[in-house]
Amino acid sequence: MKYCLMTKEQLVKEKEQLLISYDNLKSKHLKLDMSRGKPNSDQLDITAKVFKNIDCYSKRIYKDNFDIGNYGLFSGITEAKELFAELLDGNPEDIIIGGNSSLNLMYDMFSQLMMSGNQDSVRPWCKEEKIRFLCPSPGYDRHFAICEHFNIEMITIPMNEDGPDMDMVEAAVKDDDTVKGIWCVPVYSNPDGYSYKATTLERLAKMQTKAKDFRIFWDNAYFVHHLYSDKKDEIENMLSLCRQYHNDDRVYMFASTSKISFPGAGISAICTSKSNIQNIMDRMKIQTIGYDKINMLRHVIAFKDRDGVIKHMEKLAEVLRPKFEIVINTLDKEIKPLDIARWNTPLGGYFISFYAMEGCAKKIIELCKEAGVVLTSAGATYPYGKDPSDSNIRLAPTYPSDNELEQAIEVFVVCVKLATVIKMLGEIK
Amino acid sequence: MKYCLMTKEQLVKEKEQLLISYDNLKSKHLKLDMSRGKPNSDQLDITAKVFKNIDCYSKRIYKDNFDIGNYGLFSGITEAKELFAELLDGNPEDIIIGGNSSLNLMYDMFSQLMMSGNQDSVRPWCKEEKIRFLCPSPGYDRHFAICEHFNIEMITIPMNEDGPDMDMVEAAVKDDDTVKGIWCVPVYSNPDGYSYKATTLERLAKMQTKAKDFRIFWDNAYFVHHLYSDKKDEIENMLSLCRQYHNDDRVYMFASTSKISFPGAGISAICTSKSNIQNIMDRMKIQTIGYDKINMLRHVIAFKDRDGVIKHMEKLAEVLRPKFEIVINTLDKEIKPLDIARWNTPLGGYFISFYAMEGCAKKIIELCKEAGVVLTSAGATYPYGKDPSDSNIRLAPTYPSDNELEQAIEVFVVCVKLATVIKMLGEIK
Repeated sequence: MKYCLMTKEQLVKEKEQLLISYDNLKSKHLKLDMSRGKPNSDQLDITAKVFKNIDCYSKRIYKDNFDIGNYGLFSGITEAKELFAELLDGNPEDIIIGGNSSLNLMYDMFSQLMMSGNQDSVRPWCKEEKIRFLCPSPGYDRHFAICEHFNIEMITIPMNEDGPDMDMVEAAVKDDDTVKGIWCVPVYSNPDGYSYKATTLERLAKMQTKAKDFRIFWDNAYFVHHLYSDKKDEIENMLSLCRQYHNDDRVYMFASTSKISFPGAGISAICTSKSNIQNIMDRMKIQTIGYDKINMLRHVIAFKDRDGVIKHMEKLAEVLRPKFEIVINTLDKEIKPLDIARWNTPLGGYFISFYAMEGCAKKIIELCKEAGVVLTSAGATYPYGKDPSDSNIRLAPTYPSDNELEQAIEVFVVCVKLATVIKMLGEIK
Repeated sequence: MKYCLMTKEQLVKEKEQLLISYDNLKSKHLKLDMSRGKPNSDQLDITAKVFKNIDCYSKRIYKDNFDIGNYGLFSGITEAKELFAELLDGNPEDIIIGGNSSLNLMYDMFSQLMMSGNQDSVRPWCKEEKIRFLCPSPGYDRHFAICEHFNIEMITIPMNEDGPDMDMVEAAVKDDDTVKGIWCVPVYSNPDGYSYKATTLERLAKMQTKAKDFRIFWDNAYFVHHLYSDKKDEIENMLSLCRQYHNDDRVYMFASTSKISFPGAGISAICTSKSNIQNIMDRMKIQTIGYDKINMLRHVIAFKDRDGVIKHMEKLAEVLRPKFEIVINTLDKEIKPLDIARWNTPLGGYFISFYAMEGCAKKIIELCKEAGVVLTSAGATYPYGKDPSDSNIRLAPTYPSDNELEQAIEVFVVCVKLATVIKMLGEIK
């Protein structure tokens, strides 16, 4: 029965029963974590088998005619650029291969922009009175953390099924040169699992920006992270699209193998215009002796080409799919009939975005925590950690085992119901 | 015969003969590189054998009771900290393990100091009117490049056999709070190959600095890079020494395996105080998802402990020693009798520091280049690329094969003689 149709007495009774269930669950002293988008050990074991017998040491000279065991080849080995070019439908010469963390590439880019600006900046961003960034939300907490770290004001842009609200984006950038950029997770967005539609991409590529040094931070974190091989979200190469509209330098595209090979031991890439690459390399040559080329080779040997990556991802999806289904099925069964929340059913990525009744998210997460289930903190998916509706909860079903996940989601649904009933009974504001 | 005892006629004759030799060498169309401190392929082959059969994938849970294939363990795996602690005679808990480039750790530290300062700063360094750094010189060009990049004024401090001129250092830091730090390569310094004496370390650890946020950038790049197993320069742990003088936070120690395992595919470390580590981690947690833990494990398996590293370095030294000896022997034979230059005979590191007659370095390097031998650019070992005496030349004998090196040094000695004669004949200023 839908909660909204219940009488107060029915709600009170429901609450009593939920409290009994909740106390039961608490007495199990669970210790489960659905908070971060981490691969599980089954995925890592599959990948480990691929990497185990690779010899990237005996032969170290390939297409670049250069011993990759030594210093040099600053922007990465050609074979790794070709692999990412194939995956991103781009050109190898538009690519710099980075280290084990694309987040690090993004941070470094911000750091450079703050200290020096880019080739289109009037002055370093830190010398501007104010710098603002558009943050489609809910979004990725680590993106927002970078903005906060550098004292960049964040403007929340609603995230729709087809991407950020483009009317708002266009309006925000048109006449205001303090708006210097936008964060985008264009495929299987974190946490909603939405993928930008072609029209959204086009509007982003062609829109007028007052700030000449405006940049799109295109964090394509889940670009081949499909759950189903027959239903995939795929997008155009954003750099090509920007070039079509003569905004060549507008986008920094980022990608990595963190959730393809190993989180923390993968390789990353920036795909961007010639002029941006020059600007980045001018800093990189001061900053580092270059990134790990042996690990680049290791990945090239492991996956060979786009097909190799896609096939590997299909194996990982076999592990991930049941986990998403456990969550979705349980929500469908337990929560849907009550009509008290909604959630997305993504085709890929690492998250299920759950929207509780307004004002209930914090309480749900608190109740879960008390029962031993850690969720992403309330508000984490919004700038400054503040969800104006206190509604969104990012569920990360990938890390626990299927069995643990079943237990965790059992706790979650009880907490959702309980928090909602409490809210409805007016016991929380 | 010493050049200074020659008559003008003798010098003119010498020059004519040298020009004939030089033209002969030029006609060989050599293409040799003695410019950078790069390992040679024989060294890399030795290391490749060690790394080739390591399996760091099947078993991934060790002392930290944590799957190192996944996200997490932000400051690095315990075993890698223990390895560096043993090598640096320090404590694992004082160590953060970094990525493949200690230069990158140093750059990031500067970047953080510029943007935010450290825990002892009144304000971010970029908000100070002026920031100055002490640069013992000749020194490492990439250190100076970082200062230039961040607009930090460099103060040249003469480098003596026992370390930087400490009277000048103490005087510079005592009353001037714009002096925020000093670059140090304490063992087998780049390029002189000098190692700081105990008294130098002590004075650095205990000196009074006006700037509370003063820091020593202790780039211990060659800490186990001995050429001889019976004659080694070894120094005390600088952090321990600073602690003795209650200047716990004074030093950031850096080290890496770039020239132990693979340049670009090694691991790095920062060893510093608890409070500095906290300050660094506060930034790192925004900046990155952590460094490559699988590569850390790979190095731990490869070398096991200090002994393993030392034995490996002895094997590499067998390759390097003959190269240093080719250069030193040729200089002894060809240049010493002429009394026109001096050079160091280091016990380790990657360089031989050559001091030509004043005003000759640029000309020598130019002549070498025309004859197909690339040396480190003149002045590169001084702040702003300006050697006030135009005398120092950094010879990097490690990369060429023995045979190439013999040819390169043959060219070098002819160019040294020729440039000196020309200078003496007053043809150059």
